[in-house]
This record gives sequence, structure tokens and C-alpha cells, in this order.
Amino acid sequence: MALIYKKVCVIGLGLIGTSILHAIKAKEDKNIITLAYDINSNHRDIVSKMNIASLVCDKIENAINDADLIILSIPVGSMSNVAKLISSYLKEGAIITDTGSTKQSVIKDIQPNLPKNVHFIPSHPLAGTEYSGPQAGFGTLFENRYWLLISDIETKKTKQLGSFFTKLGAMVEIINANYHDRILAITSHLPHLIAYTIVGTASDLESDLKNDVIRYSASGFRDFTRLASSDPIMWRDIFIHNSDAVLEMLQRFNEDLSDLQKAIRKQDADKLHSFFSRTRSIRKKIIDAGQS
Amino acid sequence: MALIYKKVCVIGLGLIGTSILHAIKAKEDKNIITLAYDINSNHRDIVSKMNIASLVCDKIENAINDADLIILSIPVGSMSNVAKLISSYLKEGAIITDTGSTKQSVIKDIQPNLPKNVHFIPSHPLAGTEYSGPQAGFGTLFENRYWLLISDIETKKTKQLGSFFTKLGAMVEIINANYHDRILAITSHLPHLIAYTIVGTASDLESDLKNDVIRYSASGFRDFTRLASSDPIMWRDIFIHNSDAVLEMLQRFNEDLSDLQKAIRKQDADKLHSFFSRTRSIRKKIIDAGQS
Repeated sequence: MALIYKKVCVIGLGLIGTSILHAIKAKEDKNIITLAYDINSNHRDIVSKMNIASLVCDKIENAINDADLIILSIPVGSMSNVAKLISSYLKEGAIITDTGSTKQSVIKDIQPNLPKNVHFIPSHPLAGTEYSGPQAGFGTLFENRYWLLISDIETKKTKQLGSFFTKLGAMVEIINANYHDRILAITSHLPHLIAYTIVGTASDLESDLKNDVIRYSASGFRDFTRLASSDPIMWRDIFIHNSDAVLEMLQRFNEDLSDLQKAIRKQDADKLHSFFSRTRSIRKKIIDAGQS
Repeated sequence: MALIYKKVCVIGLGLIGTSILHAIKAKEDKNIITLAYDINSNHRDIVSKMNIASLVCDKIENAINDADLIILSIPVGSMSNVAKLISSYLKEGAIITDTGSTKQSVIKDIQPNLPKNVHFIPSHPLAGTEYSGPQAGFGTLFENRYWLLISDIETKKTKQLGSFFTKLGAMVEIINANYHDRILAITSHLPHLIAYTIVGTASDLESDLKNDVIRYSASGFRDFTRLASSDPIMWRDIFIHNSDAVLEMLQRFNEDLSDLQKAIRKQDADKLHSFFSRTRSIRKKIIDAGQS
């Protein structure tokens, strides 16, 4: 299946970057060349051995300089530096995208550092697992998942990029950067922050209790430890770079949690029951939306 | 496989009660008789048609009066009333257990209402799903899950009951009621409270944003909606009946969350990174403990 671009470069060989390489390889398009680079030489060696890229480059400029599409799958805190690093090597007309979880910060960090004759279209695949690193990737990661393109208008170039992501299995939609950041703050960033917090709280318990918390970890806590085992650098960067939206959602969350805390203290059974009944319907909507 | 007791009565035909009936039936022990009752006649009809109990009784006393083992799989808020209701029908020497998620409250609500010639041994299977009702049960629910017996000492009767749960697939351990309630507060009750809260927070967002939160629900939030779709009556009762331990854990959680909130506000990348790195190791321990 023809994949629109002739030379695709992936910078950053973690879960997302290697999943993109796997997904491209699975399409068996003989006309596409994939170029891969990671700052970590160990990751480059692993990906070389995996044989999922046409070429793993030891220097970033060799991966970049003839590419039609460059995908930056790196922590959002590294976007500014990498944009500066690659800017003088980019081919005229190249498309640059990224896969970061914060979009206003990425636009601010990348756009001013690029030459005028290339096109930056930020994007974000809503897909992932708690695993990280080059061995974590797999070719079906994006299937039936949304891949959001950030643009105020639809153009020929956004359509092309969208088609490329669609061929990797994703459902593509175009949304605005600020709106993206608020949605992700409540659907992904705040849940991860809370999961990290509660697992941290548990790890501070007296040691007998802590050991049995691990031993008898019931559902609930087990799910939270899964989220709280995600890549610490990636998440550090997300909270630093989407702090406004995260702090807004956190404030709303804290108000609601205080209400429930008071209801428990006052033994207000009716209030608890009505709150817990209301949240059930949201789950049903997610199942109906096919995203469960 | 012989299942120790001749007549086993299950009161409450939700996820846990019907899973027990499924698990007993799967053992194909021709000498065991199972008696079932639920206050909801609709649930009784469903279980009759499912053919997983020897007899579904329309009156609780008929289910109780000849049983060797009575299992109360009902919300913890109903324990006191049901204990009063059944106490005069219990056979001498009968064993009564329950499957509730709070143990100090259940002991306080049941023990004083029982006659002296029966034996109450509280228990709690650490197993469940987000589904509820008689159709939610399945026979392998307890396999490789802990089933905690609450007792200060091991006796012939706790050993027998433990063997029975082991035959249903569970791993049995004896622990103290207060300790149980604190462990469950952090591993199960607090995570559910937080999941209910965040899903409630999302459902209060302005309506465009809320719809797209559902549409684009990323991992994190999706997991929380699963927890927040659990049975509202069961959870109302748990928070009312384990309020001391839940409020203690909630206070610890709030302190930790405030710390992280401050770190985000101050853009303290090092603090976030070190916190997120620490929680990773807890996940690894849970995986090593075979409970992931």
C-alpha cells in the first residue's frame, strides 16, 4: 500500500517512534524508505537489530537531510533543542510533525526554530501503553485510536499527513491546540498525576502495611500502579509544559474531592449514592463511543 | 471434588454471590446442595433460569434453615438487618461468613445479632469486576485471587472455611480486621473514590469539552471510568462503613497531591522526575507478586 511520503524519518525510538516504524513496515510498501535516529546509542543499536527501519543513522543530520516527513517522537521538553538542531538540515518543503502530548508548548518550542520553507503540522496519537523504550513498540498500536492533527484549517498538506496516519490504522481528526491541551489535561494528564500520587502515598506507608498493600493490591490500586509506571521523563515534561490546563483541572478535581470527603465525614449516604450513580453513565458513553 | 460443606446457602445474588454458585457448580460435587436467595425477585428469577443453584428460595428462611454454610454477599450497609432477619432460623453449628469489603463494621453489625450456637467467620475475596448483578458472575472469578479470612487465631473452623475457598480457586490468608480495613482503604476504597471524583469532575465540564473528553478518552481516564462504573450502592456503603481508614488515607493522599501541585506550579522538574521514578518500582513489585 503506497504510503504518500517517499522518505520518512523518525526521531526518538521509544514506544511511539518504534511503533510507527513497525506500522510502516507492516504495510510492505517497497517505495518507502524509513530513517531512524535516537540520541541514545543503545536504542539505535536495538532498533538496528530489530530491522524495522531502512537505515538507523548515527548522526541526526543524516536521518533528516533528505526526508519528506520528519516525525519527532521525543519528550516534549526536548522539542525546542531538537528543532534548533535539525533546522539547517531540513529539505525544502519537508513536513515536520511531532507526537507529543502537549501542543501549545510544542508549537511555541518548534515553530520559531524552523526555516520558512518547511511545514510544521503538530500531531498527537492518543495511543500508548505503560511500557517505554524501543522494545515496547508494536505495529498495531494506532489501530482504531484517534490521531489528532493540530491546525486551524484543513489544507492539502494536513490532508496528506492525515491520510498517512490513517494508513497506519488511526482515526484522524483536526483540532485546535488550546482545546487539545484542555482535553488531554483531564483525560490523560490529571489521571496520571493522581495515579502517581496515590502510588506514592502507598509507598510512604509503614513497611508492614506497604508490603501487604503490594501483596493484596486489589483492582483500583493495581490499575493506578500501571499508570504510575509510565516513563518519568515523558511525564515530568508533560506537567511542566501543560501546567496551566493541568492546574485548572486539578483545582476542579480538588473541589469535587473535598465535597466527597465532607460527605464521608458527615456520613451523607444520599449524596454519595447520587454522585456514584451519575458517573456510571459516563462509562456507558465511552463504551458506546468504541473507546473502551 | 468434595466441597467440605453439604448445604451451602448464598444470600445476595450479585457479581460475588453468583460467581460463588458458578464456581461451586463447576466442581461437579454431587453431594453439595446450594440454596440461593436475593431480596430482589427479579434477581431470583434470573438465577433460577441460569440453573446454577440447587434451589432458589422465595423466602430467606427457607434458604437458611438447613444450611451448614451461609455466605452473605450483600452490600455492607445491609449486614445488620440481614443478620437480625436470619438469626432465629440458623441451624445449630452453622458457619456464617460474608464477602464485604469492610470488616470492622461487618463484625460490629453481624456478631451481636447472631445466636451463641453458630460461628461467624468474616471473609473478603479480593476479586471483582466493574459489572454488577446476577448476570455478572462467572466461575473463575476467584482463581489465583486472595480470599482473606478475618480471625485472630486459626481454628478447625477457619481451616475448613479456608479449604472451601481454596477449592473455589482462591489463595486464603488470615488477617486482622483493623489491618484489613486499612489495606483496603488504600488499595481499593481510595482509588475508587478518586476515580468517581475525576469522572464527576469531567462530567461538569462545559458540554463541548465534555463530549470530546468522552470521544477522545485516553488511557488514564478510560481506566477511571471503569472503576467509576461500579455498583453505587455497594460503594456508598463501603465509604460510610470504612470512613475512618478512608479519611486517614485521603488525608495522606491530599498532602502528597498538594506537594505535586506546588511542584507543577513552581516548574520544579527535578522534584516531579524523582517522584515519578520512585512509583515505578512499586508496579514492578506487584508484577513480581503475580497480582498484575
